[in-house]
Order: sequence, then structure tokens, then C-alpha cells
Amino acid sequence: MNLLLFDAPFEVTRLAGDDPRAQHLLKVLQARVGTRVFVGFVRGLRARAEVTLVEADGAITLKVVGAELSPSPLPIRLLIGLPRPHTAKRLLFEAASMGVQALHFFESEQSEPSYAQSSLWTTDAWKERLRLGTEQSFATHVPEVAMHTDLQSAISFLQGSGAHLALDNYEAAGSLPEVLGDGAESAVIALGAERGWSAGERDVFRKNGWRLAHLGAHVMRLETACSAAIAATAACLGFYETQTSTLL
Amino acid sequence: MNLLLFDAPFEVTRLAGDDPRAQHLLKVLQARVGTRVFVGFVRGLRARAEVTLVEADGAITLKVVGAELSPSPLPIRLLIGLPRPHTAKRLLFEAASMGVQALHFFESEQSEPSYAQSSLWTTDAWKERLRLGTEQSFATHVPEVAMHTDLQSAISFLQGSGAHLALDNYEAAGSLPEVLGDGAESAVIALGAERGWSAGERDVFRKNGWRLAHLGAHVMRLETACSAAIAATAACLGFYETQTSTLL
Repeated sequence: MNLLLFDAPFEVTRLAGDDPRAQHLLKVLQARVGTRVFVGFVRGLRARAEVTLVEADGAITLKVVGAELSPSPLPIRLLIGLPRPHTAKRLLFEAASMGVQALHFFESEQSEPSYAQSSLWTTDAWKERLRLGTEQSFATHVPEVAMHTDLQSAISFLQGSGAHLALDNYEAAGSLPEVLGDGAESAVIALGAERGWSAGERDVFRKNGWRLAHLGAHVMRLETACSAAIAATAACLGFYETQTSTLL
Repeated sequence: MNLLLFDAPFEVTRLAGDDPRAQHLLKVLQARVGTRVFVGFVRGLRARAEVTLVEADGAITLKVVGAELSPSPLPIRLLIGLPRPHTAKRLLFEAASMGVQALHFFESEQSEPSYAQSSLWTTDAWKERLRLGTEQSFATHVPEVAMHTDLQSAISFLQGSGAHLALDNYEAAGSLPEVLGDGAESAVIALGAERGWSAGERDVFRKNGWRLAHLGAHVMRLETACSAAIAATAACLGFYETQTSTLL
């Protein structure tokens, strides 16, 4: 992890010895008094903190010594047909690490009903994946996550300004850069579950003004396609130019 | 897998019962006489083949019933500081599934010497990852792989026309789309091992005319950054427009 996320800002805080963050500090980062680490406050500032006390039981006291703005999330939201839990775990981490704003899920026709019953979704495991991805990203925006009852409800929720497109290998109107065009200030990208969209789902997208787009002739796994689509969209719409690289 | 790769073209072939492809056909695809599957001939055609015989021991005979051109690889080559074997495994698969032309590796200053001793590289395991990635891609171009002794040798090998850039979070001259510019017909993208480039390596890149580029302020894992850089480059340089989507 590139920073330690905390839910609320602090100036000084004490992590108990059984807190995973204290254990990470001691075991992985081999922290001792004087060690400086990056911390982040969820959807708030990023800061440098110094270890001011290490107790015998592993409890660690951190004191903030300087704070700065965290990078803004990319103005990209995803709409994803609920995939296999193994795939969803990767997607949650990778999308968070790339800085997307939000992930919306729904049970698509090719999703299996069992996917939603996975412990990934019935426990807080999904939140943990988002948190780890955000810590990887070196930023503080944990993406919002929503689960919709069906595609039309999700689309209605996500309508508005910006580009709206669905990745599709079968009936794309053109490549993602062509379909995106120029000048949109935000984008919503839909990706099907592993087996793609049904004919009915394609019709729902088109009726709602979404365009079907491809990312070349190579067939990627869903998690690869997701990272590729985020990056291609961010590149085409000029979002990366608005950010500077990070001095880690 | 989206197709079964074969090293050499055939019109009719018999897979022994202990061939993993025969086992995949029987167990995963539940093939029987008359089942049609996609096959590919390495760096050659993609074809439909029909199961014409299933023997008692699981041996399967396939007959080609129609062939077509496979998608061309993206005109993108990667130069990668040798990462942890776990990361390298993912990179090999994902880069192959995205259709890159070649992967070049070298032991960068932040690579551990033990990485090259991994069974991934001392056995044919790396070839298997490439093959699986290519089967995923639904194309037949298995990327070339080379291991160079050092960065300067790799750079000398990769010089020539096209864009040459190295991803870097610290000293980027601009974002990847800015640094790429317009109109290059091919690209070489360098990515560091997990801990990035040394100051000396950055100098070697710059002295050789390579430009350092970032992909936004979010810090991705190497394998995510790799997929993101491939897609952003392909999108910016118009490579996806030259391909049509695939009817699987």
C-alpha cells in the first residue's frame, strides 16, 4: 500500500497493537519512532505522519506533520454486469487504484444469481477491496458503489451529461475513441458480465442513447477490458493532462 | 479460452486423450461429434474446426471447416524491468490478451536477481502464460519475448521509428497522450519493475531520446499500469480504429 487510509482526519492518533495498520507499519514498513509514512483521510487530504511512539504491544502513535490535496478521481463511472466474485474482487481493486469515481453493478442476463450471494457482497469484503485499491492509488477517494435492481434502473440513475457507452464485441458502432468523440467532460462506461450482453440489453442501451463501442479485435478478460477502457477513455478525453504525476 | 492454439496448421488432426486440449474440449466445452470450436495456428490463420471423432480414451479428431485471417497484433512493444514472478505471470497473460507485438525484459536496478531464477523463467511456464493470453485474445499472434542483459542493450535493440516512452511517476515530461503526440505508427512503452526506475535509468532513457510520461496521479500496480498504457497508447494513436470488433 502507498498510504494508510483513515475514515476521519486526525492530528494525532493511536493505533492499537491489533490494528492491521499498526501491524503493517511494524512488520512491512519496519516503522520505529521517527519513521514517516503517508496517510489519507477518506475523500479528504493526504498527509505525512510521523511515528511518535511504539508501545511494547505494538500500538503505534502517529502525528500528522504536513498535509496536501489528494488527486481528484477521474470523471469516469462504471456500470458493470455482476461478474464472478473472483473477477469482481479484481475489478474493485483495479478500478479503485485507477481512481474511478463510482462503480455501479446490476445482475445482467448473463450474470449468475449466485454471484450476488458471494461473501464478497454479503460481508464487507467488497469494501476492503475498494480500500486496498484506494491505498494503492495513493489518493483518498474511495469509489462509491451501488447495486441496481436492473439495467434500466441503472441507466436512468446514470443519465445526464457526458459520454455514455457500453463495451461490446459484437455490435459496436465503432472503436471506443471513435464513439467517445471529443470534448465530453465525463464518461460512463458499461461492461457486461463475463459472457457479455444479451440482445435485449443491447436494445436497452441503444434506446437510452448509449453507444456500443469496441476496444479492438482482441478479446480481453473482463478485468483487463475494464482497466483498458478506463485508460483509453481518460486518454481520449484529456483527463490525464489535467493531472500531474505523483511524487511518491 | 476463446480458441485452441496449435503450433502448425492442419486440415485434420487427432489429439491424444492426455492432451490438455482434448481434455479441455471434453470437460469444459463438453464436446461431442459435430461440436464446432475455434482453433488458431500460431501466427497464422484462425479457423473453425469440427469434432469428427471422440474415442473411448478421450482422444479427439478435429477437422477444419473454414478459416479466416486472425487480427493483427497492435504495433506496440513493451520494455519491462523484470518484476516479481507473480507480477510477470499476470503481465505475460494480459499483454498477450491485448495483442501486443513483443515483450522485452531486462534486470533493472530495482529488480531482484532472484526474479530471473524463478521457475516462471527457468522452465517453459512463461511460454504457457503467453499461450493462454493469446488463446484468450481470440487471435494467433503469440508475442515475441526477449531478455536483454541491460537497459542500454535493450534500448539499442528497440530504437527505430515510432514513439518511445517510459512510464514514470516522478520525472514525467507530461501525460502519456501529450508525450505520444500524434501520428506515430508504432510505439515502444517501457515500464519499471515494481519499485520504478533509478536516476541512472532515467538518464539512459533521456540520452537515447525516450520521453518519460505519466498516466495521471493515481499509482497503479505494474500489471494495471501495463494494461492502461497499452490501451491509452492504442487509443491515442488510432490503432483501435484500424480493427473491427470480433464476432465470437
